[in-house]
Amino acid sequence: MPRTVTGVSSALLVVAVSRALPDGGRSSGLVAVDEPVVTADDLGLTRGDGCFEGLRLVAHPAEGGLEAEVPNLGAHLARMQRSARSLDLPDDPAPWAQLLDLAAREWATSTTGRPLARGEEAAPREAAVKLSMTRGLPQPAGEPVQPTVVVTVSAVDAASLAARRDGVRVASMTRGYGPEAFAGAPWLLGGVKTLSYAVHTAAQREAVRRGADDALLTAADGTLLEGPTSAVLWVPGGGGVPRLRTVAPGSNGILGSTSQQLLFERAQRAGWDATATTGTLADLRSARAVLLTSAVRGPVAVRELDGQPLAVDSALVSELQELAGF
Amino acid sequence: MPRTVTGVSSALLVVAVSRALPDGGRSSGLVAVDEPVVTADDLGLTRGDGCFEGLRLVAHPAEGGLEAEVPNLGAHLARMQRSARSLDLPDDPAPWAQLLDLAAREWATSTTGRPLARGEEAAPREAAVKLSMTRGLPQPAGEPVQPTVVVTVSAVDAASLAARRDGVRVASMTRGYGPEAFAGAPWLLGGVKTLSYAVHTAAQREAVRRGADDALLTAADGTLLEGPTSAVLWVPGGGGVPRLRTVAPGSNGILGSTSQQLLFERAQRAGWDATATTGTLADLRSARAVLLTSAVRGPVAVRELDGQPLAVDSALVSELQELAGF
Repeated sequence: MPRTVTGVSSALLVVAVSRALPDGGRSSGLVAVDEPVVTADDLGLTRGDGCFEGLRLVAHPAEGGLEAEVPNLGAHLARMQRSARSLDLPDDPAPWAQLLDLAAREWATSTTGRPLARGEEAAPREAAVKLSMTRGLPQPAGEPVQPTVVVTVSAVDAASLAARRDGVRVASMTRGYGPEAFAGAPWLLGGVKTLSYAVHTAAQREAVRRGADDALLTAADGTLLEGPTSAVLWVPGGGGVPRLRTVAPGSNGILGSTSQQLLFERAQRAGWDATATTGTLADLRSARAVLLTSAVRGPVAVRELDGQPLAVDSALVSELQELAGF
Repeated sequence: MPRTVTGVSSALLVVAVSRALPDGGRSSGLVAVDEPVVTADDLGLTRGDGCFEGLRLVAHPAEGGLEAEVPNLGAHLARMQRSARSLDLPDDPAPWAQLLDLAAREWATSTTGRPLARGEEAAPREAAVKLSMTRGLPQPAGEPVQPTVVVTVSAVDAASLAARRDGVRVASMTRGYGPEAFAGAPWLLGGVKTLSYAVHTAAQREAVRRGADDALLTAADGTLLEGPTSAVLWVPGGGGVPRLRTVAPGSNGILGSTSQQLLFERAQRAGWDATATTGTLADLRSARAVLLTSAVRGPVAVRELDGQPLAVDSALVSELQELAGF
């Protein structure tokens, strides 16, 4: 299967697709990265109608080459399953896991074939995986959904690598909803990781316009929510047992973060007082450290909020990054 | 160019695409309807990042066959331009209009080739057009966007034809935002017709779950907004000059409706008192007629709201449908 990394679709390394064919069958397997994968009427393209997961792929040296591993895979598949159910999409994780495994093996194989740079053997290689499912083609009423599933493996972007090292500048902005907007209104898809991310990307462009690197969304009453593609964490000031806080999901519509949950479990085992709560921008301004966390980028320090520097306790940030596996 | 109408992509008649190629060039033209058109990393697919217009295509008998016309084309292209600007996408309508023209001509030609059904000659044939633009492939920071543009022509679905004749049952539900949520927050993309329609389609599924055909969205304070793919109109009770009302767009985030605007202009010329205002569900319950309007389906009567029958003044509905060109 030819895979060309081109000037245009630069970051894609591997693509695997499963989709319905005109004859009623399915096509499943690897495709070239520059090969189109969905037709013009796929509801993922026309309506942003589907869900996704962003996962990290790491390669460990193994006999005969490298072995690919997706950290926290179970949590990602479980969240994808919840998203699928919220969208009335098929929720069996087996086909996703199979396609993911196919793409991960292909990546590990092709990575092994590449000559290693000096000293590179010691470090695990990594990549970004995206697992997406769309509603596929419109079906007659009452007919079962024939979803399109797409798995991509991409190089981790330079901005993410820089953010791990240097932290990020963040601009806060409203998400427009009141803090309880999603109570009893499942059609608003609160906490569902849908493909309809136009507002999330517009918020990130607004952040760049304001001289920041990423956005931090707040509810209409000013309470903290999340980043467009991350959860927000903070270490409150004061002594004693180190504390770690994040915003609890619920009727505020925020997404349950797999990387935050994993980090909090590990931090608790390491002796931290780590709990989900509510918060405000003032809590961040008085914190010893503020972080955004997501699966691929990991926990990164927020060094500036709305143009004002934040305290960054580098030792704490490093400890949390290490606990998270970065 | 082979075009097969298949069991799966049933409604598609014509597809035209313009997209960036790996070698830096562009590919523009007609493609087979069952041919995939976007790659796995197209931001329209991965983020619902783009905008679209739904347009009606009608065919008039002309010398040598049929001539395709898009009613209200200027208003659609102008709205697409506003959507593009709101998303920081290229806003020159010329490429869209060219691709649209190509697809419309192909449709008219292929429609002419089809044997006419008995008595069909007298009526203009029609189809549904979708003009979409995505942000294309991720580009390095500072590089210009290379959008993907897709135009599809589809058969008008049976449900739309039935709705014109029989009206629809509607279920009201909150959109979650307060009535002024979009003031000063352009990143929330209020009034922008983005490809991120997952909440709109979830609202329509919720409506079906409640035994209705379509949804009617309200603000968090209960004031009227719009349907997921339509504007709401009503004819208040009482005598005198017939009145026509709709919800004014603005900081409520609703979309300026091209078909509502055209209808209101024509209604005013026909002697109606037609203005945009604010409204509540109570206004609909006391109205002589309530309608949803959109470009392809046209104005259709709402005959039931939340399980309760509404008054339907059939003569008024017919007059409004005729004024709108249906």
